[in-house]
Amino acid sequence: MADLNALPLAVLSEQFARLPGIGMKSAQRLAYHVMEMSEEEVNEFAKALVNARKTVHTCEVCQNFTENEKCIFCSDPRRDGSTICVVESPKDISAFERTKEYKGVYHVLHGLISPIDGVTPDMLKIKELLARVNGGGINEVIMATNPTVEGEATAMYITKLLRPFGVKVTRLAFGLPIGGMLEYADEMTLFKALENRCEI
Amino acid sequence: MADLNALPLAVLSEQFARLPGIGMKSAQRLAYHVMEMSEEEVNEFAKALVNARKTVHTCEVCQNFTENEKCIFCSDPRRDGSTICVVESPKDISAFERTKEYKGVYHVLHGLISPIDGVTPDMLKIKELLARVNGGGINEVIMATNPTVEGEATAMYITKLLRPFGVKVTRLAFGLPIGGMLEYADEMTLFKALENRCEI
Repeated sequence: MADLNALPLAVLSEQFARLPGIGMKSAQRLAYHVMEMSEEEVNEFAKALVNARKTVHTCEVCQNFTENEKCIFCSDPRRDGSTICVVESPKDISAFERTKEYKGVYHVLHGLISPIDGVTPDMLKIKELLARVNGGGINEVIMATNPTVEGEATAMYITKLLRPFGVKVTRLAFGLPIGGMLEYADEMTLFKALENRCEI
Repeated sequence: MADLNALPLAVLSEQFARLPGIGMKSAQRLAYHVMEMSEEEVNEFAKALVNARKTVHTCEVCQNFTENEKCIFCSDPRRDGSTICVVESPKDISAFERTKEYKGVYHVLHGLISPIDGVTPDMLKIKELLARVNGGGINEVIMATNPTVEGEATAMYITKLLRPFGVKVTRLAFGLPIGGMLEYADEMTLFKALENRCEI
């Protein structure tokens, strides 16, 4: 029996299926959708892909994505350059910006230490962070990695490396999420909430 | 406050978000993933997009997607050209081919009649189907649209148009899905299963 799809459609489906979170069936559905788009729309999509990959690189200071030498946070004089918030990936920055509370700058590690996945400290942007702190003018480094095994391990590892510089190193508070229900909280969260309780 | 993302990344996210079933958050995640792909991989992805849209068109006989004049089913001499299975979209063909039982050919309507969505019969490939049947050599037309209001209405509409040609028109059987549980079957399915019961 012949192939189910015309070849270029199969190739496109495979390309979609390589994206994270998109299975073969969704990929086929997306490929069929592309057939219903105008040629102009498809060309624009393709151009956006190539253009983003070509023009966007990492900020020379904080390793966030940018199309310039420095990212919008590092080049903004209104941001407090003495406070660095260390995150796993650029999308974590969006989360902090949504709070509209944080006015410092960032440092993107581009991953977390995870021996099981073969990610060693030298594969992350840790030496770039040390160089920034070594350069002076930094008061506080906030370890804002996720509260997972890898996130904790990475935060502890970097904290140790930062000790000699005498800079203040903090970690995000962990506890009950706002709007969350006590009865649904897992033990670790409740333990942290109890441990970090404060006087009212 | 400045934009959260470098512009080309935002443009790419928007492009992903236009695809069906992909929200703004998934789109951003996909755009960030593209940043982690090699430039070569991204170029290949973009090429697959443009190439599929440019070279793939509809089969001049059955309206299925193909890169040639006729699709792989219409050009396959081993297929029974006297039986036409009428489906809503090309992806339905894949479903029938997976059964490995159907040996006839197809006809893709590219939609279903749906006044509420502004889809009228003349926007579907119905006249192409009538022309095929009018051309002769057709024994049976299987209406294989979905068992939905639109699918039923479209099947009934086309059946009426086919009557004058004296061709046999059939509809897929509806009943309990294999492996399904009686207690979870909805009333319409159970009603159909009862109505279409057969002697054992």
